Amino acid sequence: MSKIELNKRQERILEIVKDSGPITGEQIADKLSLTRATLRPDLAILTMAGFLDARPRVGYFYTGKSGTQLLTDSLKKIHVREYQSIPVVISENVSVYDAIVTMFLEDVGTLFVSDHDGLLAGVLSRKDLLRASIGKQELTAVPVNIIMTRMPNITVCKKDDLLIEAAKKLIEKQIDALPIVKESDLGLEIVGRLTKTNITKAFVALAQED
Amino acid sequence: MSKIELNKRQERILEIVKDSGPITGEQIADKLSLTRATLRPDLAILTMAGFLDARPRVGYFYTGKSGTQLLTDSLKKIHVREYQSIPVVISENVSVYDAIVTMFLEDVGTLFVSDHDGLLAGVLSRKDLLRASIGKQELTAVPVNIIMTRMPNITVCKKDDLLIEAAKKLIEKQIDALPIVKESDLGLEIVGRLTKTNITKAFVALAQED
Repeated sequence: MSKIELNKRQERILEIVKDSGPITGEQIADKLSLTRATLRPDLAILTMAGFLDARPRVGYFYTGKSGTQLLTDSLKKIHVREYQSIPVVISENVSVYDAIVTMFLEDVGTLFVSDHDGLLAGVLSRKDLLRASIGKQELTAVPVNIIMTRMPNITVCKKDDLLIEAAKKLIEKQIDALPIVKESDLGLEIVGRLTKTNITKAFVALAQED
Repeated sequence: MSKIELNKRQERILEIVKDSGPITGEQIADKLSLTRATLRPDLAILTMAGFLDARPRVGYFYTGKSGTQLLTDSLKKIHVREYQSIPVVISENVSVYDAIVTMFLEDVGTLFVSDHDGLLAGVLSRKDLLRASIGKQELTAVPVNIIMTRMPNITVCKKDDLLIEAAKKLIEKQIDALPIVKESDLGLEIVGRLTKTNITKAFVALAQED
């Protein structure tokens, strides 16, 4: 009545499929000098438990799936749109001072900058604004387009991207946020914001799902 | 040869265990007017696949575990110490200007402030420094202990805490980083730094494990 472990025969089947898969049930039976009928419960157990998978006209193959792999599979079902935030967008002729004020009013860590067509022109991080604020310039006189990161140096994502891919971009590029964009004939429309806070929320949610 | 689905009898067993578990194999057999031997392969399959669990002298019970639950289980094995960063600590009489310079040199988003005993006295975020930088004060003349967040308003964590618990604190308190501390007789020693970047890295790593 204790938790069932793989028996010797199941272990041997697993070895055979690892070595020779994809392989049919008949071929496995041959190798073990047993009938297909005898093996049926073992193959059922190994398949149900996720060790093996089977495809019609192909045969059994080894999935190598562990609990961790199942985890990976379910991570690959989460998309950017499920965790995105609303973007805070300012115009490129706004002053650095006003940008800082907007950042505090909206309580965000990253602002996006749009051009006169309303398309993505730049990104402003707290770090960019902090750097400017200890410079010698008058903050009310400098427009944000002087200090912002601009194309082609902006890393973007789309609503339908996998959240895990967006998270990788944040890490690889060492940035705090990605603009979520929609391509149009003229350029990139800003439709959302994805931050490390969103990823952290997704991480917390993973552990709270039922 | 296609992926095996639960058959009717297995579905009924699952219903019985959901309703009446924990329940022994004999009792399930009684309810279905079948022998224990007939049920054995079905119970084996349901147990191996993780739908049911069984304990000696207790019986079968419904685990309700899905792929998501397995994911939750594995998240609960990750601790803060596996993803922590090195803390950047400044003394409380350092000027706000020097703190900003340190933040850039060390390329971190949060500084920790220590008292004369080297114990945790405060936390400085980019937001705190940005707020100060647009104020009227001379940044080289103001010490960080004027603007820092101080105890008891600092949220901390420990190396052995679950990463998921630390992530929850970051979200609930709306902060970017937690000092990782060790309690001593005098107060809290700063032994590490945990940020949303660390959580994002953990999230990415989840999907890359084998």
